[in-house]
Amino acid sequence: MGSEQSDGDGSKKGKVTFSIDKNKDFPDWYDKAVEVGDIVDNRYPVKGMYIWKPYGYKALSLMLDNIRDVMDKSGHEEVYFPMLIPASVFEKEKDFLKGFKGEAYIVTKAGKEKLSEELYVRPTSETGMYESVRLWIRSAADLPLKLYQIVNVFRHETKQTHPMLRVREIAKFKEAHTFHATAEEAERQIQEGINAYKEFFDRLCIPYIIVKTPKWDTFSGAEYNFDFLSVMPDGKAIELASVINLGNKFAKAYNLTYQNKDNTQSYVYQTCYGISERDLGVFLSIHGDNDGLVFTPQIAPKQVVIIPILKKGNEDKVLKKAEEIKAKLEKEFRVAIDLREKGVGDKYYEWEAKGVPVRVEIGTKEVENGKVILFRRDKKEKIEVNAENLESEIKKLMESITSNMRERAKEYFKNKVLSFSNVDDLKEKYNKEGGIVGLPWCEDEKCARELEEKAGIPILGFIQDKSSNKRCALCGKEAKAELFFGRTY
Amino acid sequence: MGSEQSDGDGSKKGKVTFSIDKNKDFPDWYDKAVEVGDIVDNRYPVKGMYIWKPYGYKALSLMLDNIRDVMDKSGHEEVYFPMLIPASVFEKEKDFLKGFKGEAYIVTKAGKEKLSEELYVRPTSETGMYESVRLWIRSAADLPLKLYQIVNVFRHETKQTHPMLRVREIAKFKEAHTFHATAEEAERQIQEGINAYKEFFDRLCIPYIIVKTPKWDTFSGAEYNFDFLSVMPDGKAIELASVINLGNKFAKAYNLTYQNKDNTQSYVYQTCYGISERDLGVFLSIHGDNDGLVFTPQIAPKQVVIIPILKKGNEDKVLKKAEEIKAKLEKEFRVAIDLREKGVGDKYYEWEAKGVPVRVEIGTKEVENGKVILFRRDKKEKIEVNAENLESEIKKLMESITSNMRERAKEYFKNKVLSFSNVDDLKEKYNKEGGIVGLPWCEDEKCARELEEKAGIPILGFIQDKSSNKRCALCGKEAKAELFFGRTY
Repeated sequence: MGSEQSDGDGSKKGKVTFSIDKNKDFPDWYDKAVEVGDIVDNRYPVKGMYIWKPYGYKALSLMLDNIRDVMDKSGHEEVYFPMLIPASVFEKEKDFLKGFKGEAYIVTKAGKEKLSEELYVRPTSETGMYESVRLWIRSAADLPLKLYQIVNVFRHETKQTHPMLRVREIAKFKEAHTFHATAEEAERQIQEGINAYKEFFDRLCIPYIIVKTPKWDTFSGAEYNFDFLSVMPDGKAIELASVINLGNKFAKAYNLTYQNKDNTQSYVYQTCYGISERDLGVFLSIHGDNDGLVFTPQIAPKQVVIIPILKKGNEDKVLKKAEEIKAKLEKEFRVAIDLREKGVGDKYYEWEAKGVPVRVEIGTKEVENGKVILFRRDKKEKIEVNAENLESEIKKLMESITSNMRERAKEYFKNKVLSFSNVDDLKEKYNKEGGIVGLPWCEDEKCARELEEKAGIPILGFIQDKSSNKRCALCGKEAKAELFFGRTY
Repeated sequence: MGSEQSDGDGSKKGKVTFSIDKNKDFPDWYDKAVEVGDIVDNRYPVKGMYIWKPYGYKALSLMLDNIRDVMDKSGHEEVYFPMLIPASVFEKEKDFLKGFKGEAYIVTKAGKEKLSEELYVRPTSETGMYESVRLWIRSAADLPLKLYQIVNVFRHETKQTHPMLRVREIAKFKEAHTFHATAEEAERQIQEGINAYKEFFDRLCIPYIIVKTPKWDTFSGAEYNFDFLSVMPDGKAIELASVINLGNKFAKAYNLTYQNKDNTQSYVYQTCYGISERDLGVFLSIHGDNDGLVFTPQIAPKQVVIIPILKKGNEDKVLKKAEEIKAKLEKEFRVAIDLREKGVGDKYYEWEAKGVPVRVEIGTKEVENGKVILFRRDKKEKIEVNAENLESEIKKLMESITSNMRERAKEYFKNKVLSFSNVDDLKEKYNKEGGIVGLPWCEDEKCARELEEKAGIPILGFIQDKSSNKRCALCGKEAKAELFFGRTY
């Protein structure tokens, strides 16, 4: 996904013809959509690190406002822990170390001076955080403790990198870390974390399934974890979020204890869960169309764009009206007005590629008869409304856009997650369309591994289902779960 | 400023007696105020890197909301550029390199793998940003371009570190970078940057003077720069912000050009200006008193704390009333209610140390006669108001608190910046009280250097004043400026 042919700031062009079939040429579509849509610039001189442009950064900030809101509402507190972690601290939990060491960047010097201890650049913050939070917890009265932070983290990815989806600097990683007195409380927290993320993805109209990761593939240092998964237009699965029960493995490595009433010490139980800018990449991929990006009003950097249609003689009147309307709409919406010297067609094209939900067109006719044309990006339909009801008409339209996009995403996802009863049917379908495909499973590890080998598709996780009356696709015994397969980004 | 005696999460204690004379023992006061006030934890295992606790992080976020607002209003766009900068890019501008290389952290490997090119951890973002922005600018139509980002930057400080004031990880550095077609435009931008910062510091009620840095001490790679300076309670000066005219030195190093109408290329002119979390440290230092922190409502993490005064028999009534009041106040203010099992005195003490502007006290009397006691933290005064007018009374009180704190800070600053006509008087006063002290100056470098040596105090900068009728404190020629001296953090 390199882009040598790019010719400058996307916001300044207008003559590119977009039109890429998203479902046929998804990788091309993605590259071009995020470039022409002014989300990121992929020409930064380090592989896998990208520049967030103003328009894209605004979308990202709006997405983060939503996760903050969901976290704050459920009693999480925002903090910031340092990015650099001393090697001696980073290396305490051995499973974690095994999982992350290879992809962690390491600072070894300052200027020409060799550091006395190497510093890991956080790939995620468990280690540096737990080393310090230990000092915050003394008795059960200090628990539960529910923290989160939104920070940059770094992973030396060896896989192919793509803007937002797989990167070496995650500019915005939201990681929550919670601390509890009992295993039961931590268990309940997992459910709370899942519910918080459900609300978050529902707000973004991103469809998902939630699977549990088999124990042999669990997050390094964890008891078990759940993943939120979605499917991209090219049929590849993608992890949207991870919700992890850490048990007390880290507590033991970092000596995270609290004092009981009888003066003995007990280890705390922990959970952590994260999402990142990747979810904006998924949002854009699922909602976009062959003409570029399509934003829901929820996180659209601009919700309305006003385009004055100027012709000789009408300029003053039309501009005056357009500015009037802008002043009115700005009280309620994020509004742009396009006054550049450029053809109306080019302007339409650009703002469509940038996915602005509603366009307001104002020309002579509109000034004279008090009507205004609204264009909705999601359905590419025009409607005429009375200028005097404009705010309420746009508000109604935005609700309709959101619910249409939600329904459309649901519809899209219906064909992306499919259940089968045997490997052959599954393979046949998967090889044509990808997606996430499931088989009944008895929960025996050996059966899972054999099914994975027969299918030739990696296991993604499973959903327990004790009452399905189905039979394990391998051994024929009673199925207790559905096991899912797919290839991920 | 280490703190080995700390015993856990500041928010959980109540029996510490604060009371440190801020003006006599400022370093102790500062350490304890930011610890008991729950701003940062200074026990992170890397020198000069600190943990932001929930309460402190909220104050920081509110401060950043203000700088964002000021930047957005004046047409700056928020972006995000990658943190790691390839050595070949970092090392292009030679003055800059000389200035920053020594304090830059460097990533040399990922896991065990040596990187093919070393990556600098940004100490500030000029280099990585300009390398890429070059691709965004083609013609004068792309200018001016006004960007800013709020990011973590790293400096291997060799001076003593203090939370917020001098750190090795600046968690939140707001840096603006602007690009212009002409030197005159860049010059005008400097004034705009200064005005934006004036508004920012005025909102925080932080007093300052603005001085120009002598050319021999200018920011590495710059034409000239202005500094906003304030003075801490111990008499040390501190830099609040820097506003820098880069001219086209960087443009030449990074080949930042735009195309003229005749197809020739011209170098752009640049400015940059920054503030950081340090300003929160200054805010807390100037406004705090011997009982701890004192927040203005503008950036108080909690603006109001409700303390129910429970006695046997009144619990239900008082709690009900307190919750009612909380629900009402939350619509307009950031509100805490303290329901912990803990003495009222301890609660008062804690929330005073945390600097909450207004405390609402509710006991039996208040429930019965419809009156409520409000305590204002700035003056430590109580007033009784009618419960039914509570919102408007608190609003009025907050305005009064802000204006009182603004006046108090102004008054404080009056004695911190003083003008003298000769070195002896200046030295005598400075050696007693510190601060920022000035002398008339002819603008000759030789005179400045000799004055600096005679005074034995470093030069901070100067303010031009062509009509002062004063005489240079060294050579006796006509003074064209006032030259300021002081020791900084």
